[in-house]
Amino acid sequence: MSNAHGIAGIPMKWVGPLKISGNVASTETKVPIATFESPLWPSVGRGAKISMLTERGIVATLIGERMTRSVLVEAADAQTAYAAAQQIQERIGELAEISRTVSRFIELIGVRHEITADLLFVRFEFTTGDAAGHNMVTLAADALLSHLLHTVPGISYGSISGNYCTDKKATAVNGILGRGKNIVTELVVPRQIVADQLHTTAARIAQLNVRKNLLGTLLAGGIRSANAHYANMLLGFYLATGQDAANIVEGSQGITVAEDRDGDLYFSCTVPNLIVGTVGNGKTLGFVETNLTRLGCRTERPPGDNARRLAVIAAATVLCGELSLLAAQTNPGELMHAHVQLERGDQRTKGEA
Amino acid sequence: MSNAHGIAGIPMKWVGPLKISGNVASTETKVPIATFESPLWPSVGRGAKISMLTERGIVATLIGERMTRSVLVEAADAQTAYAAAQQIQERIGELAEISRTVSRFIELIGVRHEITADLLFVRFEFTTGDAAGHNMVTLAADALLSHLLHTVPGISYGSISGNYCTDKKATAVNGILGRGKNIVTELVVPRQIVADQLHTTAARIAQLNVRKNLLGTLLAGGIRSANAHYANMLLGFYLATGQDAANIVEGSQGITVAEDRDGDLYFSCTVPNLIVGTVGNGKTLGFVETNLTRLGCRTERPPGDNARRLAVIAAATVLCGELSLLAAQTNPGELMHAHVQLERGDQRTKGEA
Amino acid sequence: MSNAHGIAGIPMKWVGPLKISGNVASTETKVPIATFESPLWPSVGRGAKISMLTERGIVATLIGERMTRSVLVEAADAQTAYAAAQQIQERIGELAEISRTVSRFIELIGVRHEITADLLFVRFEFTTGDAAGHNMVTLAADALLSHLLHTVPGISYGSISGNYCTDKKATAVNGILGRGKNIVTELVVPRQIVADQLHTTAARIAQLNVRKNLLGTLLAGGIRSANAHYANMLLGFYLATGQDAANIVEGSQGITVAEDRDGDLYFSCTVPNLIVGTVGNGKTLGFVETNLTRLGCRTERPPGDNARRLAVIAAATVLCGELSLLAAQTNPGELMHAHVQLERGDQRTKGEA
Amino acid sequence: MSNAHGIAGIPMKWVGPLKISGNVASTETKVPIATFESPLWPSVGRGAKISMLTERGIVATLIGERMTRSVLVEAADAQTAYAAAQQIQERIGELAEISRTVSRFIELIGVRHEITADLLFVRFEFTTGDAAGHNMVTLAADALLSHLLHTVPGISYGSISGNYCTDKKATAVNGILGRGKNIVTELVVPRQIVADQLHTTAARIAQLNVRKNLLGTLLAGGIRSANAHYANMLLGFYLATGQDAANIVEGSQGITVAEDRDGDLYFSCTVPNLIVGTVGNGKTLGFVETNLTRLGCRTERPPGDNARRLAVIAAATVLCGELSLLAAQTNPGELMHAHVQLERGDQRTKGEA
Repeated sequence: MSNAHGIAGIPMKWVGPLKISGNVASTETKVPIATFESPLWPSVGRGAKISMLTERGIVATLIGERMTRSVLVEAADAQTAYAAAQQIQERIGELAEISRTVSRFIELIGVRHEITADLLFVRFEFTTGDAAGHNMVTLAADALLSHLLHTVPGISYGSISGNYCTDKKATAVNGILGRGKNIVTELVVPRQIVADQLHTTAARIAQLNVRKNLLGTLLAGGIRSANAHYANMLLGFYLATGQDAANIVEGSQGITVAEDRDGDLYFSCTVPNLIVGTVGNGKTLGFVETNLTRLGCRTERPPGDNARRLAVIAAATVLCGELSLLAAQTNPGELMHAHVQLERGDQRTKGEA
Repeated sequence: MSNAHGIAGIPMKWVGPLKISGNVASTETKVPIATFESPLWPSVGRGAKISMLTERGIVATLIGERMTRSVLVEAADAQTAYAAAQQIQERIGELAEISRTVSRFIELIGVRHEITADLLFVRFEFTTGDAAGHNMVTLAADALLSHLLHTVPGISYGSISGNYCTDKKATAVNGILGRGKNIVTELVVPRQIVADQLHTTAARIAQLNVRKNLLGTLLAGGIRSANAHYANMLLGFYLATGQDAANIVEGSQGITVAEDRDGDLYFSCTVPNLIVGTVGNGKTLGFVETNLTRLGCRTERPPGDNARRLAVIAAATVLCGELSLLAAQTNPGELMHAHVQLERGDQRTKGEA
Repeated sequence: MSNAHGIAGIPMKWVGPLKISGNVASTETKVPIATFESPLWPSVGRGAKISMLTERGIVATLIGERMTRSVLVEAADAQTAYAAAQQIQERIGELAEISRTVSRFIELIGVRHEITADLLFVRFEFTTGDAAGHNMVTLAADALLSHLLHTVPGISYGSISGNYCTDKKATAVNGILGRGKNIVTELVVPRQIVADQLHTTAARIAQLNVRKNLLGTLLAGGIRSANAHYANMLLGFYLATGQDAANIVEGSQGITVAEDRDGDLYFSCTVPNLIVGTVGNGKTLGFVETNLTRLGCRTERPPGDNARRLAVIAAATVLCGELSLLAAQTNPGELMHAHVQLERGDQRTKGEA
Repeated sequence: MSNAHGIAGIPMKWVGPLKISGNVASTETKVPIATFESPLWPSVGRGAKISMLTERGIVATLIGERMTRSVLVEAADAQTAYAAAQQIQERIGELAEISRTVSRFIELIGVRHEITADLLFVRFEFTTGDAAGHNMVTLAADALLSHLLHTVPGISYGSISGNYCTDKKATAVNGILGRGKNIVTELVVPRQIVADQLHTTAARIAQLNVRKNLLGTLLAGGIRSANAHYANMLLGFYLATGQDAANIVEGSQGITVAEDRDGDLYFSCTVPNLIVGTVGNGKTLGFVETNLTRLGCRTERPPGDNARRLAVIAAATVLCGELSLLAAQTNPGELMHAHVQLERGDQRTKGEA
């Protein structure tokens, strides 16, 4: 029936394995990527192969995590807004209590605010266990907002979300104040592997990164972002693992750093806004359960550990694809040649499937 | 086999119908949305219903279309870069010839450049028929770059893409110079329908739009964007129609305008960077073909007409979801209430499915 | 002698008086503005006159103050950078001690950091008494950086300033984390005064503000800014009071809000990054001393009070000029007419002078 | 009398000489800088000295010039706005005629537009001879807007300025579409001079530039800007030459590129939005006339040539100060040491003066 539930079947492939170490997980794992763009698979695969050729692989360091929701209230005037903001800061313990009623996995870890005219934007920061936390923090924000409207004088309802959260919009606030999991990945590729596997040099990749990712994005009017195509890897990984893939909008605001270190390549991707979870919406679908399990993210662990593991795997996947594309773009014609070949090969594969 | 092709099955539903008029299409059609977030369906559905209650429905005006790719060349110095840029402008006819060898559907319609230090970024603008055009413009840019490197003195290869295109990154250049289909949608909702269907007033929606979408996004450090959740609708629609959904990154940089016109609501969504096609990668999958056909976008028409039709349907879908969410957020608690109900209902539905 | 000290004499005029109330000062005062653009004087003057016609005048609320400097260190890797950042947070008391050795007026009130790849940006926040504080915080940052380099393992010198401060650059970080004095000014103008003095209506000003300052700036690719010409008033006031006027770059990133409240006009200017002082560089020049004294900012008061007073006067001056220009732009031709008249009048005045 | 004209006397010094070549001027000249911040003089002076030690000096390439004003009109709906925009493009010749009635020095060279909802922003681009052109383009825009309102159906007055110009606001549009004079300066400093004069290496300056100016500004949420302190040099130069110094807001959005070329330093400052003139407001003051004359910018030349000469001198001044500061920041403690010394020296000098 035309109105019934159907399925949009996105082609999916397991790529890798890639090697990860760091402060969250040490593992070798293949990664699932769902995409209409088949060249993405070998692109990530090449990066993964290189990670396997190095001793430590991709070192992924988690340096922060939180989920946020900003509410908006209107005050009688700026002075009242300011007084309200001060009260809120003083009552964080009380607010933390209220937010805990929503879920045993949520914990209020901070509150920031901003005042413009007589408007007060309050940005609540939470940890949310293994959930990405969109719904949990909205529920908590709703409870907190109700409480504030009843107990703080001179303010009235503005919006349950004031766009200062910020969800699924490219802004600066998420990077500066934090939202989602903030992960730095690093890979040192020996000179010979750069030559053999990537057909280029560390110096050329470093120079291209400055010119394309830093200068090019800057000239384009980018905001807090300098990379070639994080969005591609994030989309493919998010779809394959049941994430809310619209979070690639802010997730793709990350920064690639490449340096020539005596011929070896230091390559790093900072992905400050990874919004991922191992429970919640979409996680009960069969293929998602299967994929999360295979990634080792459905193991019995303290709350949050599975989600952190998933996040570093996502970040490592980003690095693999980014490294591969940048290397290709140092060589005139390579990208086009590869695309044409892959597309042709893919047609054949599809024909066989 | 673990490495074989699999499928990520995203739940999909046809929502609507919605009513569209304007300079591209006049139609009433349901729209397919694939998402892990089930509340999105009734949200879009409510907006669609309202469009059906009005005489003209959603008026969608296409005001521009192009696909772009920027190449990067290094010059001997800034003066040489400048001379090269001038030459390129003078030789547009010749360059158009070369790009036509790539495809009979591609046409070079403009070239812009930017110089920083001794680097020259050249941004080629093309029309690409019914294809979104990613591959077509890369192929053309590759041919043009080769040609320029052979015929313009003093320049050498920098990159086939200089991030000034800009693909899948949130920047300002796409909005200012254009990339993808630029569409304005407008819907005038009579006062009574605002009250009955949206349980609010035009004045409250207009005020919320200023405070949340304009001021809130501004405070968050957004760039050329002011909306509540375009990314959600675009993702769902892109996945259901075989688009490269990573283009929601720039696609979601759009602007909502809401005005109270004597109690009636003027509601408009400008979506300047819609990257969609009806042919190309992903479009040969069964469900995609079915969906495009059902949307009337596989009809025999002049090249480009099917893609333009698809684009206005996408833009109208965005308006439906945006209107519904903004209206909900004018009412304290409504969003949470709806989510809880829907999620519960959805669980039941899923259990039944 | 050609290399000797000379003087660039900028024409200066005292405008007003304007009326201020709020949490810092209640006063009526003229304000000095030095500018080559003579129409600025009557423009601010008109706003000032309106403030005098209202009961409370311009209500200026100070909602934050700090001066910042960010240092940059390179770490062995991201994990080391992260460990260093954690150490720094734990040792804030110790760091505050060190910064106090620089001046008895400086106090460390917070430290934020950001990590990208193996780079650690540390942003120190201080209060600096009555000084704007550029030199004081650089001196303190230098001492703190030396101390950290000697006591935190695995880090080395990157830069005394990492551009994450951010000084004299238009960015998002200053608004989000704070830098300088953050002041909201509000003025409620009764309907009749809007009509008589501004020859327009609250509704027209509110609409223009949304379309020009919010939407127009957004389309132009602005960052955290929505106003017509804060830069003009800040420049004139900064020059007249011995400030480092290059701080108008971030100072001019402010937000105008205008609302029609039953025919009365609610008009507000939020100026989050006012960098001003009453002591320090430039403040010993004769005309500066005279002007600061006349503004009541050289009175015997607790440290910081004079600077806060100066800041609210600066912010109120911004509001006066902003209100006047926006009102003028609601009327076709008024701006041009006024300019032509003023320029002609000014010529005559100059001729007479 | 308290309301009479006074003077804000900003300390001014001639620094240099510096050496310039390129497509506008070949000259050696001292430059005047008016500032309250005395360390700026020796900072620029050091860069100037280095330029004198090289054969070509600072090569300044002018790659574009225009002055802009955007008007805002409201249309009946988006379709009407689109039709109006198309009409305007077709009638550029007619519009050029009208703009010429304003001044014999103004020439309309382009029109761009942007549509959001039912709003049409039209951005007129002009050349304005030797004037910076603020008033000239406002006068022309006023005439053009009147004409359009009378001849294009379905549109009404919005604003004489729609903030899409953009004047004195930090945005992306000016860099992408152009506003003011767009100048690239380049200086190649031999390895030995880097060592002797700057006490550092090309490699260290290049690395610092990537980390501080590119990465640091990016993390801070900057928009189209990557430099250490262009605002300082522009302010000092603008004040000394009678410019509207509020234009440092967009003028300071420029990009520093530094590269290590076999030990030599390639150093470049791109300053895309220099708004300067040799006639107009402020240019008739005595010290301004003297300074412009001494800079060789009051010579009998074709219209525009004097302003272009002034612009390249301004841009070269920017490079001198930028190079000096970046070099200093590669050495721990140097900046602080220099400041302390200079401030002390300056006190002495002031005492002597």
